Amino acid sequence: MEITDLNILCNGLKEGKLGLALARFNGTIAGVFTNNRIKAAPVIVCRENISSGFAKGLIVNSGNANAYTGEKGIERAREMCRIAGKLLKCDAREIAVASTGVIGRELDIEWIRKKASEVFAGLGKTRECAERFSNAIKTTDKFVKKAYSNKAKIVAVAKGAGMIAPNLATMLCFIFTSAKFEATELQDMLKNAIKPLNRLTVDGDTSTNDTVLLVALGDEKIAKEIFEEELRRVCYSIARQIASDGEGATKVFEVIVKGAKNDRDAEVVAKSIAKSLLVKTAIFGSDPNWGRIISTIGYSGAEVDDKITVIFENDEKSVKLVENGFITGKEEEAREIMRRDFRIVIDLHKGDFEDFAIGCDLSYEYVRINSEYTT
Amino acid sequence: MEITDLNILCNGLKEGKLGLALARFNGTIAGVFTNNRIKAAPVIVCRENISSGFAKGLIVNSGNANAYTGEKGIERAREMCRIAGKLLKCDAREIAVASTGVIGRELDIEWIRKKASEVFAGLGKTRECAERFSNAIKTTDKFVKKAYSNKAKIVAVAKGAGMIAPNLATMLCFIFTSAKFEATELQDMLKNAIKPLNRLTVDGDTSTNDTVLLVALGDEKIAKEIFEEELRRVCYSIARQIASDGEGATKVFEVIVKGAKNDRDAEVVAKSIAKSLLVKTAIFGSDPNWGRIISTIGYSGAEVDDKITVIFENDEKSVKLVENGFITGKEEEAREIMRRDFRIVIDLHKGDFEDFAIGCDLSYEYVRINSEYTT
Repeated sequence: MEITDLNILCNGLKEGKLGLALARFNGTIAGVFTNNRIKAAPVIVCRENISSGFAKGLIVNSGNANAYTGEKGIERAREMCRIAGKLLKCDAREIAVASTGVIGRELDIEWIRKKASEVFAGLGKTRECAERFSNAIKTTDKFVKKAYSNKAKIVAVAKGAGMIAPNLATMLCFIFTSAKFEATELQDMLKNAIKPLNRLTVDGDTSTNDTVLLVALGDEKIAKEIFEEELRRVCYSIARQIASDGEGATKVFEVIVKGAKNDRDAEVVAKSIAKSLLVKTAIFGSDPNWGRIISTIGYSGAEVDDKITVIFENDEKSVKLVENGFITGKEEEAREIMRRDFRIVIDLHKGDFEDFAIGCDLSYEYVRINSEYTT
Repeated sequence: MEITDLNILCNGLKEGKLGLALARFNGTIAGVFTNNRIKAAPVIVCRENISSGFAKGLIVNSGNANAYTGEKGIERAREMCRIAGKLLKCDAREIAVASTGVIGRELDIEWIRKKASEVFAGLGKTRECAERFSNAIKTTDKFVKKAYSNKAKIVAVAKGAGMIAPNLATMLCFIFTSAKFEATELQDMLKNAIKPLNRLTVDGDTSTNDTVLLVALGDEKIAKEIFEEELRRVCYSIARQIASDGEGATKVFEVIVKGAKNDRDAEVVAKSIAKSLLVKTAIFGSDPNWGRIISTIGYSGAEVDDKITVIFENDEKSVKLVENGFITGKEEEAREIMRRDFRIVIDLHKGDFEDFAIGCDLSYEYVRINSEYTT
């Protein structure tokens, strides 16, 4: 499925590092935004506009985050909505808006005004339109993230490169469905479904612009339980894809923590491992240096002792490196598992709580991309 | 000054990745250890032994951290003390002990026993002895960190590579003085003086083995105020040196936060910037991408608004990149300052609290070292 299989018109264009995307629809809308205390102008304006629970269009630009741009930035985010509203023949407050790119640069609103007419002229339901739309929102992404559910008629398009946690690459995720739900229902379901995205971005370590929108077009009746389950699956798929497009990432790993004393312990252990630089570099080198995992668990703040179990596994094989604190010496078997995507399963043997996090490895390429980004 | 200018005998040897160091003295002792919940065996044993406030010797091995090695590890750390005690003709409980290296490997106690006699035989007060001592405690360090105060008769020798924060490289720091102080006084002074080392290692993100010991030999009367000030200066110097020997670091930067609403805000902002991967990679590329700093401040958890001031400076020059939220456009001048060690000064304009942190940049070399460490 593509966005354009739903009742949506869309289009986009890319010109060098700048991009502009436009979509026309008519539905209920919900959104989840960054926790960063410094919020980009489009985040502030988008939240305002969607508070009505309805929207008729979306305008997104890439290359400039319109973040830390003060009152002028807010005015320009509003102007983006006015530009889109005029073209789509609706009120500016019926437009959702998002931006991604460099922080602290004035937004070239005239470029957006000019290009918006061009993008509007090409709005359509073809596959090319959908491709231009998703291509326009990319920045350092190697590929566009897409996920869909035929069962629940959901299509999600996202941008964001992995290692978002320490990295702050903006995640933009636009989820459309032909299902019919009230905006308040949508908001609840979205909040619950985005856990995989949060386990990727790690609470608080979010960029100034992170935005997840869910639009329900109201064309079909879909059972809530089915929709919820499918929405979660779609978000999980997007999270995995973002991790695998980690800036410089060569593989994705998932951390599954079991046996934690409480919710919080499970969460901090999973997140600490997924974002540890030492773990990430060891995984890049396929180095089964589980001591770094143990040390990370130790500083995570969770209640732990030295009776931890550490397992590396994929769908074919499972290797216990440490069992109840006993070192098995199976490093060479573990090294094989580390050569591609795998899971790190931790059992703290302290209780019944579980959680997970998604991460990717840290490579030379990560350093290259991020030391050369604006220059 | 060298260790051996004080009333100490020392020696060490290095054999491949393994090292052993020994020192003989007689003094009061204080220590500060890792906050990691998983503490290496030598940390547990050393803390026990120095609880008397007195010590007659120190034994340190490198290459194996003796961490996550269970009861057997504790027994071997004690055996290290017995070996040293026998050689130095004192009780095993009068020996301080430390280890650094790979986690989760059994310690080869027979190697230590054999080599200890060899090291003991060469104990002395020559410059070569001091060099062998400090060389023996190194792991991935490119150089030994040393600092001294003639005024307060302090000599510090340390190992540890920068980026300790996310990195968990063990920091070992041994500080000796000919001054005379009670162990309780020493402990208080040490706790206050190690702030720069904490601002480098970032609370909690400490390795399983971090150990800072302060030994007072009691040969001279030195005024407490002078000693305290000099001890702080020595610790600050060691912290800067550790940062500059960051695994793969090409430069050191200091973050000075002013105008914070409270102590905690000043601390979290300074630390968040010093450990942000995006800031570290931008600094590696001499890229004045201050937007990453603003975004980091935004997710630090501190109370901030968009009226922040960001200054890049060194001893010759100071460039305001953002003044009260106003963007000055002086990126090119800032880029020049970033070519070598520099300071990032942040004013949050929210109150009167200040703090600082020390960091180093993140380079390709960091990834190489840490993806290949145990293999």
